[in-house]
Amino acid sequence: MLGNFTYHNPTKLYFGKDALEGLGEELLKYGKNVQLIYGGGSIKENGIYQEVLEILLACGKNVIEDGGVMPNPTSERLKQGAALARKHKGDLLLAVGGGSVCDYAKAVSVSAYCDDDPWEKYYVRFEDPTCKIIPVGCVLTMAGTGSEMNGGSVITNREQKLKIGHVFGSDVMPKFSILDPEFTYTLPERQMVAGIYDIFNHICEQYFSGEDDNVTDYLCEGLMKAVVSASRKAKKDPRDYEARSNIMWAATWALNTLLDKGKTTDWEVHMLGQAVGAYTDATHGMTLAAVSLPYYRHILPYGVKKFRRFAVEVWHVEEKGTDEEIALKGLEALENWMKELGLTMNISDLGATADMIEGIADATRVMDGGYRVLSRDEIVKILKESL
Amino acid sequence: MLGNFTYHNPTKLYFGKDALEGLGEELLKYGKNVQLIYGGGSIKENGIYQEVLEILLACGKNVIEDGGVMPNPTSERLKQGAALARKHKGDLLLAVGGGSVCDYAKAVSVSAYCDDDPWEKYYVRFEDPTCKIIPVGCVLTMAGTGSEMNGGSVITNREQKLKIGHVFGSDVMPKFSILDPEFTYTLPERQMVAGIYDIFNHICEQYFSGEDDNVTDYLCEGLMKAVVSASRKAKKDPRDYEARSNIMWAATWALNTLLDKGKTTDWEVHMLGQAVGAYTDATHGMTLAAVSLPYYRHILPYGVKKFRRFAVEVWHVEEKGTDEEIALKGLEALENWMKELGLTMNISDLGATADMIEGIADATRVMDGGYRVLSRDEIVKILKESL
Repeated sequence: MLGNFTYHNPTKLYFGKDALEGLGEELLKYGKNVQLIYGGGSIKENGIYQEVLEILLACGKNVIEDGGVMPNPTSERLKQGAALARKHKGDLLLAVGGGSVCDYAKAVSVSAYCDDDPWEKYYVRFEDPTCKIIPVGCVLTMAGTGSEMNGGSVITNREQKLKIGHVFGSDVMPKFSILDPEFTYTLPERQMVAGIYDIFNHICEQYFSGEDDNVTDYLCEGLMKAVVSASRKAKKDPRDYEARSNIMWAATWALNTLLDKGKTTDWEVHMLGQAVGAYTDATHGMTLAAVSLPYYRHILPYGVKKFRRFAVEVWHVEEKGTDEEIALKGLEALENWMKELGLTMNISDLGATADMIEGIADATRVMDGGYRVLSRDEIVKILKESL
Repeated sequence: MLGNFTYHNPTKLYFGKDALEGLGEELLKYGKNVQLIYGGGSIKENGIYQEVLEILLACGKNVIEDGGVMPNPTSERLKQGAALARKHKGDLLLAVGGGSVCDYAKAVSVSAYCDDDPWEKYYVRFEDPTCKIIPVGCVLTMAGTGSEMNGGSVITNREQKLKIGHVFGSDVMPKFSILDPEFTYTLPERQMVAGIYDIFNHICEQYFSGEDDNVTDYLCEGLMKAVVSASRKAKKDPRDYEARSNIMWAATWALNTLLDKGKTTDWEVHMLGQAVGAYTDATHGMTLAAVSLPYYRHILPYGVKKFRRFAVEVWHVEEKGTDEEIALKGLEALENWMKELGLTMNISDLGATADMIEGIADATRVMDGGYRVLSRDEIVKILKESL
């Protein structure tokens, strides 16, 4: 059964090989001051920075440079970015990069004119913005987080060793996003496969919850199969446009507020992964991969029916044996695909050590929408099995 | 491979048992004059009219009555509605009904201030609106057409015996739609199953085209399976909320501009069905059902690979025999499900006669996105097989 909900996703997407041509049209809608947000500089190497800058200058914009945003953007960096936007009266925040850059842009958007401490207000107390919001636009260079068409924003507080996400409303979502699959070609393979698993896990987080037979379940299964099919082609040839375009499009729909409508969701893998990330600064998708199987094997007995459905519908497991046996074969198939992609399958390889387990467990938020509400002991057990 | 495209769907949806509570909030955004558009009066019998009217009056609106819109709204009726909106300076067109009512509201929206003949401009020449557009809102009472979240509008010219659709841009899409699945409970079973087949066929029209392995294909398969599953429950018990809510949600996503992004589409079944509708005034979904199998059996040899995939993925046909044999079994499964629902399986039962065939063939637009561009002889052959 679908519960009550509101759906509103006004982000305009320009998709394909000529997607950047849409930027000029969008820029007309905003004032002169554009804060150009990007990461470590790879966009300067592959030429995207130059392309974007030329369009900005041709449109007569004042460019406020805000480069060097780190992969897990911090609350400290957020304060600097917010101050910059306020000082230069930013009319548009243009994020050019992957999920971290886009998440950071949304955080700056609601923080520039925030009288409170943004970390405390948004990421600790989960309050809604009450101040002026600066519009965000996005030029995506990595497929994975879905940040290009949602209100999600994850920020890390290094001092407190916390990595927390807030999902803002449609007024904070990017006004537009430019999605050119070719912009993801130069991404190192490790980043590509981490992004692919991030996509797949976004779908899992929304799928492994509830007992209903909803449209969403079927859409999730379709998207998962699409990701698996395209991932194998992209692994073989990263410049396979069919594969990369489908991965990019799947990423957007895996987390743009469609799949969670009217149903419960889990998100415990993300909570575990983000806690690992707060301790190791490891790539987000890899932290998810490293904790997924111990977690899913642990909760499987509480959601056998759905894990059985996952096995049969997504992995075409033969319907022979008990429900639990069929369900377990689905997780085996998932594990084999993850290894095939070359994902990091344990948190030790991400830099986590046994003596961090208690701290990571402390930093793990417990969700109540999945098949099992974890106790502290269960979290520790799962983390130890992930080592 | 996904081609270049723009995606922008800003319609805000309120979904569920309390969805109508969203209407008051939306009404605040528009001026005083609301043109209340509805059909034959069933909404007066089931109380929805009264509920909506009370909200309109409580919000201090002037209500301009525009009831009695016919199931296949005509170009003549459109002129009257447009004159009414212009005369009373309508600030919002509120459609309360199914696809016909919503399609008509969109047509009025772009016609009230149109200096040209709207039928000629939009439905014959397919031009874009150049005049002021009146915003449209929708309270949906029947699931099927998807009109609640797209720019589509089909109008019938009785004199010319033509039924033609125009797909307008996001500025003509409803600003908001209220989707309460319980509002569909009182619909006669015949209308319910016609709507269900309309949904299914919208997906087919976008699926049976192209040779790619796109995200869209997987989403289509998921949606089709969801529709089949929910339809069986709804047929058994029309007040099964799970079934009706999933049918309503599937209807929206089957035709809200997602599934055709970056790929070719067919729409020949709709062209055939609409031509039958222009001659018989029969229920839209039934006209589609009546021509579907002769059409699909005719084009199957030109798209064997996709019809085989349809058989295996949607109907779980065993992969034994030649590709064509497997593909044909998929169409058999489709036919069995259609008969199970009680759909009208030939155009004779809808009032079409052999002497209408030439005229219907003349009124059938030939599309070029499917697996076969039909000749005039092929159209006649398919129509004869549909008798």
